[in-house]
Amino acid sequence: RVNADRIAADLDAMSKITDPGRPWTRRAFSPRFDEGREWLARQFTEAGLIVSNDAGGNLLGRRPGGDPKRGTIMLGSHSDTVPDGGRFDGVAGVIVALEVARMLDERGIRLRHHLDVVDFLAEEVSVFGVSCIGSRGMAGVLPQDWLALTHEGRSLDQAIRDCGGVPEWQIPATNIRAFLELHIEQGRVLEAHGTDLGIVTAIAGITRIEIVLTGQPDHAGTTPMGTRADALVAAAALVTDIDAEAVRRAHGPDHFTATVGEFSIEPGAANVVPGRVRMLIDARSDNRDQMREFLGWSRQRLTKLPTKISADMRVLSDNRPTPMHADIINALEAASGKVGATHRRMVSGAGHDAAFMARLAPTAMLFVPSKDGRSHCPEEFSEIADIALGAEVMAEAVIAIDQE
Amino acid sequence: RVNADRIAADLDAMSKITDPGRPWTRRAFSPRFDEGREWLARQFTEAGLIVSNDAGGNLLGRRPGGDPKRGTIMLGSHSDTVPDGGRFDGVAGVIVALEVARMLDERGIRLRHHLDVVDFLAEEVSVFGVSCIGSRGMAGVLPQDWLALTHEGRSLDQAIRDCGGVPEWQIPATNIRAFLELHIEQGRVLEAHGTDLGIVTAIAGITRIEIVLTGQPDHAGTTPMGTRADALVAAAALVTDIDAEAVRRAHGPDHFTATVGEFSIEPGAANVVPGRVRMLIDARSDNRDQMREFLGWSRQRLTKLPTKISADMRVLSDNRPTPMHADIINALEAASGKVGATHRRMVSGAGHDAAFMARLAPTAMLFVPSKDGRSHCPEEFSEIADIALGAEVMAEAVIAIDQE
Ligand SMILES: NC(=O)NCCC(=O)O
Ligand SMILES: NC(=O)NCCC(=O)O
Repeated sequence: RVNADRIAADLDAMSKITDPGRPWTRRAFSPRFDEGREWLARQFTEAGLIVSNDAGGNLLGRRPGGDPKRGTIMLGSHSDTVPDGGRFDGVAGVIVALEVARMLDERGIRLRHHLDVVDFLAEEVSVFGVSCIGSRGMAGVLPQDWLALTHEGRSLDQAIRDCGGVPEWQIPATNIRAFLELHIEQGRVLEAHGTDLGIVTAIAGITRIEIVLTGQPDHAGTTPMGTRADALVAAAALVTDIDAEAVRRAHGPDHFTATVGEFSIEPGAANVVPGRVRMLIDARSDNRDQMREFLGWSRQRLTKLPTKISADMRVLSDNRPTPMHADIINALEAASGKVGATHRRMVSGAGHDAAFMARLAPTAMLFVPSKDGRSHCPEEFSEIADIALGAEVMAEAVIAIDQE
Repeated sequence: RVNADRIAADLDAMSKITDPGRPWTRRAFSPRFDEGREWLARQFTEAGLIVSNDAGGNLLGRRPGGDPKRGTIMLGSHSDTVPDGGRFDGVAGVIVALEVARMLDERGIRLRHHLDVVDFLAEEVSVFGVSCIGSRGMAGVLPQDWLALTHEGRSLDQAIRDCGGVPEWQIPATNIRAFLELHIEQGRVLEAHGTDLGIVTAIAGITRIEIVLTGQPDHAGTTPMGTRADALVAAAALVTDIDAEAVRRAHGPDHFTATVGEFSIEPGAANVVPGRVRMLIDARSDNRDQMREFLGWSRQRLTKLPTKISADMRVLSDNRPTPMHADIINALEAASGKVGATHRRMVSGAGHDAAFMARLAPTAMLFVPSKDGRSHCPEEFSEIADIALGAEVMAEAVIAIDQE
């Protein structure tokens, strides 16, 4: 069995590596991040793993396999955090991967495949404004124009090098038999159902749509109601309709969410009719058709604005859904059954490194419950018992995949 | 007749007294404002007026009357501007008042009353965050706790002193026979009706209501639509209903507007369900009952929020409507008829110094059309011919009031 106390101690140790006075902040490319990685590399070494960095700037710890030409089974996640984030998002999956390696040793289990424990570089949106640097790099799909992004005089190119990467080597990693990532759910679905673990069948695609409505900024006192072009009033009706359309789409079998998370008005003075509203829609689904239809619906909806209101719409980004691999889903499901964990299949609404790893290898994810669904905040919490149960399932799945 | 060219030249001269590179910015308590007042005082003197400052920090120019115990007829407005404002808001009324004095001289008309030309201090919201300093001071109703407000190390108390005022002298001015203020409309009603002038029957009261809706900030990807407490979605429905309620009330005989001019969400990140919305409602009417009913309606509406959304409501300010005086309305109307100007009675949706002067003296206002209703912006424009026509009406009304 895995050692829950050791997982707890490791998570506790990593939680102490945080920016002073800001629990918990260990942002990629910061001194604290480097400290965290040094600590991780030391644990990897103590666990007998061979430590290395790949071209993507990822930290790897290898437990060599008995039949190297079979390639590697890779487990892991990321150790960076958002500003003022939690103690589990990302790092729980790295510690669990390490624990699986240690537990296999302790049980004297020799695998045919290598087992690679990975800490991906900069999964969260970093100071460079982009995310999943390491997993994109490993998959050979890191946009090369991102390398010129700079923060405080340092380019992303240099920052990746400073983490041991070689950003111009856009060579997809090969011979990965499977990739498995344990992560906290960051939602309330497992908790609501009282289920131990979630087995991810797909990572939702994300479309980000920017809409700007333009009316006319008028004096709030002197402009009669009937003669206004109030951009906020038009935007309010739009938000209501976006929400209703999302609720309608979520009623079907597919995962669907649409959220207006950014919303600002101009000029924003008490006595001025709002002349302009900018909003950002975040629409997600595991079904590409749903995303395409929602985009079409949005475009159509903007043709029905009040005559005095004009609209600009821009698709800022559009990432397709990523189905997880049936073999790995099945392996996780069988392993859950074996260790006696209750589980349910679910879609990950959140983006993860696993979405990029799925381009390279059969991939799936395992979710552990998040208390109250809180994440990206200091209150983020998952039970050590749930994480340890997840580690158990990961170990069993690895053993099963190794033997196929 | 009044001299339209002289009015144009004066407005032009004042428009040149603006913060460098910022047309047109002459904010109260700034060096530019002092420059403007120096220029005005010089014109007052050249026109034979006796220049003084009152305890409220207002600049006055008196044309002595033949029968001093009858008191004074006061005309004027304010010379301060909002940041990046227009060339007419306020200062047009000061220049017109001066022109009336000059024109009476040129026509050799001796009045029984004094004629006072006034430039009120700081009508616009100044750097101290409050408005109508000078007219409140003249009426003896300047809130004494405002005097402690500070901006860049200077108190409002000191700032009023620096303009020649004595802020602790809360003595309402006496013996004012009538107060008349010409101002630009700042709306599109006169333009839409092709009417020369507006005669203000009341200045609307203003209620400012702050509403904060609190839901729960959740991950936009992982939180199913049905389990959210989205403060923006709740706020959108509220904005829609506020607008509909205002439109309904505006259909009656009363002036009514309600505007949500400030609206902000938290945390305001693309992938986070909005957990909090703050909005500010600006509701105006000439009928106190409408304002009271709207406040009650708002309170009632907040009891119908989705169960997961809570609301806080605060009335930040509540100023009652100010009816203008029938005698002065009638005098302006008769004068308009005499000079052949088309005119309509209307409610001022905007606040003005006249609202405070109405506590001291029979008061009314005259509006000249604003192009496209634009105000508080560089595009603000009124025709000199309309302003001159207004000046003519003001002069005739003064002569008539003097003879009553
Ligand atoms: N896992 C996670 O929080 N990803 C951040 C990107 C997103 O899904 O919004
Ligand atoms: N006249 C004018 O613009 N007053 C400002 C205060 C207001 O009415 O909102």
